[in-house]
Amino acid sequence: MDTSYFNFDLIASEKNARAGVFHTPHGDLQTPVFAPVGTQATVKAVTPAQLEEIGASLVLSNTYHLYLRPGADLVAEMGGLHEFMCWPHPILTDSGGYQVFSLADTRKVDEDGVTFKSHIDGSMHHFTPESSIQIQEKLGADIIMAFDECADPNNPAYILQSMRRTHAWAERCLQAKSRSDQALFGIVQGGVSPELRSQSAQFIASLGFPGHAIGGLSVGETKPEMHAMLEVVNAILPADKPRYLMGVGSPEDLINGILRGVDIFDCVLPTRLARHAAAFTPTGRINLMNASYTHDHAPIDETCSCYTCLNFNRAYLRHLVVAKEMLAATLISIHNIQFLVSLVKTSRQAILENRFENYAQEFLQSYQPRQKRGE
Amino acid sequence: MDTSYFNFDLIASEKNARAGVFHTPHGDLQTPVFAPVGTQATVKAVTPAQLEEIGASLVLSNTYHLYLRPGADLVAEMGGLHEFMCWPHPILTDSGGYQVFSLADTRKVDEDGVTFKSHIDGSMHHFTPESSIQIQEKLGADIIMAFDECADPNNPAYILQSMRRTHAWAERCLQAKSRSDQALFGIVQGGVSPELRSQSAQFIASLGFPGHAIGGLSVGETKPEMHAMLEVVNAILPADKPRYLMGVGSPEDLINGILRGVDIFDCVLPTRLARHAAAFTPTGRINLMNASYTHDHAPIDETCSCYTCLNFNRAYLRHLVVAKEMLAATLISIHNIQFLVSLVKTSRQAILENRFENYAQEFLQSYQPRQKRGE
Repeated sequence: MDTSYFNFDLIASEKNARAGVFHTPHGDLQTPVFAPVGTQATVKAVTPAQLEEIGASLVLSNTYHLYLRPGADLVAEMGGLHEFMCWPHPILTDSGGYQVFSLADTRKVDEDGVTFKSHIDGSMHHFTPESSIQIQEKLGADIIMAFDECADPNNPAYILQSMRRTHAWAERCLQAKSRSDQALFGIVQGGVSPELRSQSAQFIASLGFPGHAIGGLSVGETKPEMHAMLEVVNAILPADKPRYLMGVGSPEDLINGILRGVDIFDCVLPTRLARHAAAFTPTGRINLMNASYTHDHAPIDETCSCYTCLNFNRAYLRHLVVAKEMLAATLISIHNIQFLVSLVKTSRQAILENRFENYAQEFLQSYQPRQKRGE
Repeated sequence: MDTSYFNFDLIASEKNARAGVFHTPHGDLQTPVFAPVGTQATVKAVTPAQLEEIGASLVLSNTYHLYLRPGADLVAEMGGLHEFMCWPHPILTDSGGYQVFSLADTRKVDEDGVTFKSHIDGSMHHFTPESSIQIQEKLGADIIMAFDECADPNNPAYILQSMRRTHAWAERCLQAKSRSDQALFGIVQGGVSPELRSQSAQFIASLGFPGHAIGGLSVGETKPEMHAMLEVVNAILPADKPRYLMGVGSPEDLINGILRGVDIFDCVLPTRLARHAAAFTPTGRINLMNASYTHDHAPIDETCSCYTCLNFNRAYLRHLVVAKEMLAATLISIHNIQFLVSLVKTSRQAILENRFENYAQEFLQSYQPRQKRGE
């Protein structure tokens, strides 16, 4: 093992915001970084070549989905995820924990693990911290995640029990891990309780992971609650290791996360919105299905340099959406991913130049987030 | 008008097979040429940048579809089809005739034109030779087609009447045409009757079009009938103008067409097959849904240099197909289009080197066509 792997170089910081470099076997990640999601070993509707052109550096893939289909053994037989999906750059896999609770029909959760029914064919499966690590070792991502339970923040009575279980599982994941070319990140839970989040951050930080994730946010809590939890947790997590806010986010969540010391983000939002014709602009989302774009000669975003904005106008994109053409999802996904990738790159540059706070304020003032969560 | 437009330079011929150059306002077409189909101003699931990388030079788009959605006026307002769909290379539009008879609910056909009901919203419309030309002038393709009736070859009693109508409409199209930067091609009809095909070729050739199309084939006749009709028609059509076999086709049809003097082809086959997981190989089609490819490390075609074959194996493509990922259609479309584009390019090179007949024989011996038509 190259010992320079998984070191985190903190290059600059401005208050809590940080610019760094995280070294992985498949290349350096310039942080803050946004990872598009390739759930089933493909970022939906986008080729790896297009992702490279966008400037994406890290892709997330889902252990739950790949375990069910095509199976971790097949991915290993094909040389691992990088080779299988033709992404020679850094990859992160989650532990499957979140999907087991959100997608599958969860049948039994105990100290050992989780028994669940596949959302694809109804077959029964059992995940444990050990099996999650084993699967992730077969998949072969650069960054892998501890198996955790993401408890409902609206069920506070259960949060403590769930957090303790997540802590015990984190220790078992560390024990189970055998590959030296993968960085295992521990996950902080604790719902929206500052006390539990603080306890969780302290416990997880004590285990010596090369990076830390903040789980259980963006799952139904309010924005002020999310921000408060980030402040509590990041004050405790060591500054010399990267911090990953799981499943986030929207443009405003990325800026607010960076302001509070987050280094890594992932979210399905840019590709999922694209499949519903919604596109990011510096002033908020637009939906290209809208009849007001029928005669619009402008690109989605005049300031954007993505392939879509350099070549196609809103009238054409609206036509593709109305005509139900697959190219609509591809072109809008390219734009939306580039929008978020560029947003964090611009943020990084602003941190390096000690002007991120101004940049963040200006962005948040001009960007109108959606009032309701989700799409 | 640049008078060099629409000249056809016959560079070489080998028996009936020809290599030429057709000059258009958006660039030279090296013939024989295969045009992928962009029905609704997009080649399904493929970006223009990917089409350029494939080496496609000509794209066909459908007048019927664009007239209904988004409308020819909108395309004109956007600067025409080239600008609208971001394809700065040659474009061909059909006349809408074929779709009016095959897709729409045809209500009335008489000497004036065709009244039909839209397949999208049931609204009533009327196409005449004059309106077809007017719409195609708004769309702005380099090559436009005369409005014709594609009669059922299994209804020989109707073929003569239909052919005469197509001839009268061809004359009206020539009269109606006003743009000098578009080449209007006349269409030969006549079903599977050598006599009618011969009459039609003579009549259409007499009108002085800059190019000629052979319509009404690949619509239910047998392969020997198609070949016989090509031989009859191409013996009559002038050698100094390009010949376009409409809606064809499969790899074996391309080779058989080139052998019989065809210069231009178009077909939805490569993209339609791709959306059903079928891919061309030098020995025939394979279907990537097939379980036999689950562990297959090989690309679709070891001899192919497309983006898909250079980067992805059959096991991965099968995974995408099984998981219903959109990327499957994109990657297989890229391969299938490149397969046909390369097939005609290789044929052209063979003609230039006077070895096409050998090449054609070898190809037809190793390629196993499907027994049944269509997919």
